[in-house]
Amino acid sequence: MDFTEETATEAVVASFAGTGDARLREVLESLVRHLHGFVREVEPSFAEWERAMEFLAATGRMCDGQRQEFILLSDVLGVTMLVDAVNHRKASAATESTVLGPFHMVSSPRRELGDSIDLVGTGQPCVVTGQVRSLDGGPLAGALVDVWQADDHGFYDVQQPGAQPAGNGRGLFTCDDDGRFWFRTVTPSPYPIPTDGPVGGLLQATGRHPYRPAHIHLIVAADGHQPVTTHAFVAGSPYLDSDAVFAVKQSLIREFTEVDDPGEAAAYGVDPPFRHASFDVVLQPGP
Amino acid sequence: MDFTEETATEAVVASFAGTGDARLREVLESLVRHLHGFVREVEPSFAEWERAMEFLAATGRMCDGQRQEFILLSDVLGVTMLVDAVNHRKASAATESTVLGPFHMVSSPRRELGDSIDLVGTGQPCVVTGQVRSLDGGPLAGALVDVWQADDHGFYDVQQPGAQPAGNGRGLFTCDDDGRFWFRTVTPSPYPIPTDGPVGGLLQATGRHPYRPAHIHLIVAADGHQPVTTHAFVAGSPYLDSDAVFAVKQSLIREFTEVDDPGEAAAYGVDPPFRHASFDVVLQPGP
Repeated sequence: MDFTEETATEAVVASFAGTGDARLREVLESLVRHLHGFVREVEPSFAEWERAMEFLAATGRMCDGQRQEFILLSDVLGVTMLVDAVNHRKASAATESTVLGPFHMVSSPRRELGDSIDLVGTGQPCVVTGQVRSLDGGPLAGALVDVWQADDHGFYDVQQPGAQPAGNGRGLFTCDDDGRFWFRTVTPSPYPIPTDGPVGGLLQATGRHPYRPAHIHLIVAADGHQPVTTHAFVAGSPYLDSDAVFAVKQSLIREFTEVDDPGEAAAYGVDPPFRHASFDVVLQPGP
Repeated sequence: MDFTEETATEAVVASFAGTGDARLREVLESLVRHLHGFVREVEPSFAEWERAMEFLAATGRMCDGQRQEFILLSDVLGVTMLVDAVNHRKASAATESTVLGPFHMVSSPRRELGDSIDLVGTGQPCVVTGQVRSLDGGPLAGALVDVWQADDHGFYDVQQPGAQPAGNGRGLFTCDDDGRFWFRTVTPSPYPIPTDGPVGGLLQATGRHPYRPAHIHLIVAADGHQPVTTHAFVAGSPYLDSDAVFAVKQSLIREFTEVDDPGEAAAYGVDPPFRHASFDVVLQPGP
């Protein structure tokens, strides 16, 4: 039987009948049905199909050890956050998750509670404090809090290997017996996702800006609980309503309050005025 | 409003509201709906999503001036042939189209009717003859017939730049006043699509072979008519029922008949025995 508009999808699905891995077969069948559905709906011309092939090849050419342009594409199409959503249908009291992002590519250096993750010293001083608890409200002593963030100019250390020391803006903290953590940093700033590749071209062609609102990344883990990958977003930051990667959740926005009290400043080892944000984390039970 | 399973798709679609090009907006909206539909259906784990991102990046890394692995991926998923189908809903008497394939990357050398496109001299001699006509049956004098094919070992000239002379297996012919063309070649052989990249891995994981049945590519064009990109498939070739790229149409299969008649052989300038295939082409009117 010929491969026609009518028979095309079933023919390709049938070609995967010999797939050994049942899950792979399921994924490919679904992929083919949706991909063919897309083609049937938009009926691309050959010229459009060729442009699509070129776009994908160009996206691939941007990928190397430091850059994964397909993840960026997944991000700006909301696919990454949708994958996150279907994987985290969690108890409502637990801290919500959001995207990992592409900058958690190096291990965060272990630091002591109260240490600064800012190794440069520019930018507005900021103190972040929080407590890690289980769903029943009990503190999770010894929970691990892995944090990373862009500097006050919107760049991660790995983006500026000459200008920033390795590990700048990163730290791995162990909570105290009361599940509490605290560290010093600089107030993060909004930043654009990389725009020098095909994804940047896509954003430009669609009139979308490339910015993410100011945030600090956190991965929080404790024994007997499911870890959470999340952000603390800075209240009032531009782009909270239009994050290029759709990662904002209202429950994750925090006031980064200006504090001018010399006593408080001294207690945290910073000069006033500084900003203070509190970000408690609630984990669900899990393996 | 948060980006959730419920709101995700409309949020991303809305982000394209400012797209200047109406067609681009239409394509992206459809893409997002189908892509999100795929994610909702298979609910990929993060590990699966990461493997998908790695597969796409690896596919991109295979692309260069001589290789377009995304086109190969489109081919083995039946997308290329589906795009072909929706673009060629033609009058039933017209010659059916099929895939262009990746090997029409160089211009075919102009040759005289009766010339051989085989510059090597191994393989079984073969004569291809045909007539180009319009839908009403009238011959199309001066029609252009661009042919290219793999050699008797299944390789195109561009795949073996040292071993095959440039232009081997290729020719651009101008039909005579009766719309007829004829040329000498070698009987083509089945061959595998390239398997050393991610697409080869996909075929292996799904138990699919990478072979295409033996065929000769043709693009036929005439003034006042729509050109057709097609193949002449060799009747009896292995893989006619399981072409890796789904390009076989029954109407395009031809007997490559063995001829042992010394007179016929002499008329075409070949030694007997040779094979003879007849492939008439009917074009639809068009710009």
